[in-house]
Amino acid sequence: MTLARDVFLVDLPLEDARERFFGALGEPPLESESVGLLDALDRVTARPVVARLSSPHFHACAMDGIAVASSATRGAREGAPVVLRLGSEAKEVDTGDPLPADCDAVIMIEEVEERGDGTVAIRAPVPPGQHVRGIGEDVVASEVVVGARRRLRPADLAAIASTGVCEVEVVRRPRVAILTTGDELVDPSVVEPPRGAIIDSNGVLLAALVMQYGGIAQRYPRVADDEALLLSALDRALAECDVVVVNAGSSAGSEDFTARVFAQRGEVLVHGVAIRPGHPVVLGIARRGGRKIPLLGIPGYPVSAAICADLFLRPVVERFARLDPPAEEELEVVLARKIFSSLGEDEYVRAVAARIDDRLVAFPLQRGAATIAALSRANCLITIPRFQEGIHAGTAVRARALRSRAAIERALLAVGSHDVAIDLLAAAVAAKNIEIVSANVGSIAGLVALAGRWTHIAGTHVLDPQSGTYNDAAIRRYGPREDVALIHFAQREQGLIVARGNPLGLRSLRDVAERSARFVNRQKDAGTRILLDVLLTREGIAADALVGYDRIEFTHVGVAALVADGSVDCALGIRAAASVLGCDFVPIAREPYELALLARDLEDPRIAAIIAALHSKELRDEVERLGGYDCSHAGEVRIVKAERN
Amino acid sequence: MTLARDVFLVDLPLEDARERFFGALGEPPLESESVGLLDALDRVTARPVVARLSSPHFHACAMDGIAVASSATRGAREGAPVVLRLGSEAKEVDTGDPLPADCDAVIMIEEVEERGDGTVAIRAPVPPGQHVRGIGEDVVASEVVVGARRRLRPADLAAIASTGVCEVEVVRRPRVAILTTGDELVDPSVVEPPRGAIIDSNGVLLAALVMQYGGIAQRYPRVADDEALLLSALDRALAECDVVVVNAGSSAGSEDFTARVFAQRGEVLVHGVAIRPGHPVVLGIARRGGRKIPLLGIPGYPVSAAICADLFLRPVVERFARLDPPAEEELEVVLARKIFSSLGEDEYVRAVAARIDDRLVAFPLQRGAATIAALSRANCLITIPRFQEGIHAGTAVRARALRSRAAIERALLAVGSHDVAIDLLAAAVAAKNIEIVSANVGSIAGLVALAGRWTHIAGTHVLDPQSGTYNDAAIRRYGPREDVALIHFAQREQGLIVARGNPLGLRSLRDVAERSARFVNRQKDAGTRILLDVLLTREGIAADALVGYDRIEFTHVGVAALVADGSVDCALGIRAAASVLGCDFVPIAREPYELALLARDLEDPRIAAIIAALHSKELRDEVERLGGYDCSHAGEVRIVKAERN
Repeated sequence: MTLARDVFLVDLPLEDARERFFGALGEPPLESESVGLLDALDRVTARPVVARLSSPHFHACAMDGIAVASSATRGAREGAPVVLRLGSEAKEVDTGDPLPADCDAVIMIEEVEERGDGTVAIRAPVPPGQHVRGIGEDVVASEVVVGARRRLRPADLAAIASTGVCEVEVVRRPRVAILTTGDELVDPSVVEPPRGAIIDSNGVLLAALVMQYGGIAQRYPRVADDEALLLSALDRALAECDVVVVNAGSSAGSEDFTARVFAQRGEVLVHGVAIRPGHPVVLGIARRGGRKIPLLGIPGYPVSAAICADLFLRPVVERFARLDPPAEEELEVVLARKIFSSLGEDEYVRAVAARIDDRLVAFPLQRGAATIAALSRANCLITIPRFQEGIHAGTAVRARALRSRAAIERALLAVGSHDVAIDLLAAAVAAKNIEIVSANVGSIAGLVALAGRWTHIAGTHVLDPQSGTYNDAAIRRYGPREDVALIHFAQREQGLIVARGNPLGLRSLRDVAERSARFVNRQKDAGTRILLDVLLTREGIAADALVGYDRIEFTHVGVAALVADGSVDCALGIRAAASVLGCDFVPIAREPYELALLARDLEDPRIAAIIAALHSKELRDEVERLGGYDCSHAGEVRIVKAERN
Repeated sequence: MTLARDVFLVDLPLEDARERFFGALGEPPLESESVGLLDALDRVTARPVVARLSSPHFHACAMDGIAVASSATRGAREGAPVVLRLGSEAKEVDTGDPLPADCDAVIMIEEVEERGDGTVAIRAPVPPGQHVRGIGEDVVASEVVVGARRRLRPADLAAIASTGVCEVEVVRRPRVAILTTGDELVDPSVVEPPRGAIIDSNGVLLAALVMQYGGIAQRYPRVADDEALLLSALDRALAECDVVVVNAGSSAGSEDFTARVFAQRGEVLVHGVAIRPGHPVVLGIARRGGRKIPLLGIPGYPVSAAICADLFLRPVVERFARLDPPAEEELEVVLARKIFSSLGEDEYVRAVAARIDDRLVAFPLQRGAATIAALSRANCLITIPRFQEGIHAGTAVRARALRSRAAIERALLAVGSHDVAIDLLAAAVAAKNIEIVSANVGSIAGLVALAGRWTHIAGTHVLDPQSGTYNDAAIRRYGPREDVALIHFAQREQGLIVARGNPLGLRSLRDVAERSARFVNRQKDAGTRILLDVLLTREGIAADALVGYDRIEFTHVGVAALVADGSVDCALGIRAAASVLGCDFVPIAREPYELALLARDLEDPRIAAIIAALHSKELRDEVERLGGYDCSHAGEVRIVKAERN
């Protein structure tokens, strides 16, 4: 590669890009196929469905009772009933029976007096047609049962069946070619992918999105970074599919061939859209035998791919399939933290939202375009329009729900210090349909969020240097001005996470400083960082004596991963993080990990379920198996009283 | 059969029935199965999905540029740049490349000055970790990627794939046995079902509903009305399925075996619920090897079956599958007509709704429990609680959307006189994503609805006896007090619909009266009935000289069906209705069929599309092929000016 590159990427505003692309695409031709009724569920009718038979196809009795000729009941009244002979003048019928010959009405069983001598008495005249379902009452043969362009629901299918029709002409689903490119891509099933190999998760992402949109995903073998190979793969896709998606290579680097091959087979309409993530999109159209085949070059970062697909691929599939866009649940959420954004780009921010009191609170998550897991964890998406530089905390904004409203409404938000055991707790209460959504911000930021009613729960472990005790002082200083409940989760070991075999023989922080071991720290206000500072002060070690004191990671497992990889020699963290990454561990301290919440929230049944789970042997055993946890007091609750002043 | 029957049906209020049944059912055991990623779309995780690999699984460059040791940039500033040798001290990298050994930061290409001598100048120090995606930045191996009880979206599947996992443990879908019973049932594919045979549309209905709810539908061969046969079918279903549905035989008649066989294999908890339609429901539970198998006896009328399934079967499937109920779109609709209802039953009324000005107007449809086509045509469902005797016209009520909100919002309501050609018009404009929903109430009621702004369009053909002209007088009398536009649809023939071969040799209404031919009439205020009365007056024939003048049907095809079936000898109606039913036709009059609407609505682009369609040769030809239509003036618009007073 070379530092010089073809820069022909011009970021268009989203609306302009849409207009250019969809304007050129127009309305794809309507193509249909005939399918059986159950296969037609959720498909769209290509033309009206016409009844083959009338429904009912005979005059049917609509009540249990007797069928009569209405003329025979003329003049009947209370004092002068008409008496009819059963079997000849009055015929016993059940609902659904054909109306007997010479009868034109049915009298309900409740209104018939059986006289015991084979006759019945009728005390009121009946009009012709009473309680009779005439031929075609519901549908007449040759009438339209279900109109064109209807998405077929079960009742539609039943209505069609009731008229003797077993096949429906529905709109053909578009076949979407998914071409993934890149020398470095490997399948998720590869046991040990080599360093530098990128696991192809976009193939799954795009195929699943196409299915969700209502198309048929056709995946092709991965293509290496070679223009000629990509061109021949594109030709095959153009011959076999209605829509072509190429992922990735949509940018303007030396190995980004997408725009070039599109230009060789069709017209490139858009290269670059002012959105973040997702800006290096290529949109074009190829023509094959009078048909327009949309070409979409989707960027490689997974979050970019998901967002671009939603903006451009979904409407394409919907146009071919004649589907309405699904109803999107719009939420009004209040931002728990300020979001920055750059002018000139529409920015899509993933967030977790939960209801706290009368508002939906949203915590923004990691914003890297590569963090597909953060997109998976998100339950809503906030758009910052391109003329805004950001949004202040406390602002109410519109967000698009990424999960069902019910799931968002029942979510419990846990914001604060990260502990892997939280995942086990979440799994335990998930069985009770309680969902814990979390954002990792560190202990103190969690307590501040609790004070502002921005979270239900704050996971916390903050050492008070003066008293040597945990959490109470921090709650008084940063937490809510009302009674706080602390639910004990576990006593856990903090210590040095070191490479397997502890090659530098590190036994203490002093060793770390003296041997200039490469260290990685946690972010400010993280409980573990506060512990580090207290320990350094106690030992009389200056912060800058640690190489890497300023290098920051945000989670226990994050620092352990750096140790495991050899990027650093050590970090302070919990034993469980060391053990999941295969690192060694030198214990230095024990600390309680507690869940802080407003005392009044102890009434919330979801909190009660959490406490119950913490008392259960299953969860305790599972957490202790992580290593370094003592759960013998899990679920104990103590109250930190608000200071009255 | 006998008139006496076992009456042990007791209608419980809906909430009591639910509590009894779902309380006894409890939470079904969680069972899971392992499926590939794309098969897991929309499934629910049975347990947390744990990362096999970290993502990324190596330190990766997050920008195109150069990788450096951050320590080498210390002290760099604008006036004193640090110069690094390319290839050794500074390595060119692309996004996604592994971070080269001895490097811990990446500098963006835009911030690097190439000096042309194989070196680059750096003008600011960089911190360690800059533009580096550390191992596990997104997910760390052994961490939870996706929690338990999550409905899997494409982003979740991609997040799972990105951690090297290719299979997911998801909640098993419940298998629902669908047993349809009844001697009279025949398959929809039967070419000519015998009189009395009922086309089994409920099998399709229930199977499609189970699929929609998230279960697996297992259909069994139809069972005859025989207790022993039903019992053995039930035993097979109990052995093979998680849930058993029997349809029908859920009432208390002599051939209604459902409750009896349920009682022999389990416990019947509910027999009869105070809902309409749908009250004869049987709900029970069987036990097989420590498992509870819910038993549902669903009534046979299709609309009853659909409503019962929604109330009882859907929650059962959702409990097994651990699915949230789908978000239901709630609408506020204003009732266009009064609905009556009986005290003591929750009643479900099908309706068509459309937006007119600032409100959603809803027209109730046919209420027979057998009219599945009316349920199919409905786009919303109104519930009348059991303590109400009805709802007045003009009342705003909550309704459940049966189609997407978008489809309801774009619907055009056509209420008034029935004409089969309307279906062809609807199909023509459906291609432009315009949906016409209609309710047939007759010409005058349509004009009254137009005056009250209860409909967009009123199909009309009303003869003024004084002037002998159509529609203008009726619009002045019943229509809106503002300018009305009349869009000409067709000139059509009205006449006598008679049996094939015209066996009674009827040539005129006088023949009908003199030969005492059995006649069927249209409802009051229908344009055809007004025409009849005018013709009778002209000919000097008394109304009661017609046998059947008081017998009423609501549509042209409805009367033709009675003629075709031999129930009556003749009726007045349009030629097209006669021809679709294979009847003969004796022309008597020609009349314009016109679409009335507010003149100001001519600006509505949907109306413009209708006018354009009426001008098209395709639609005109199609309508004229029905027989008896002359479309040469279709699409012409005239205005009936409001009378100023």
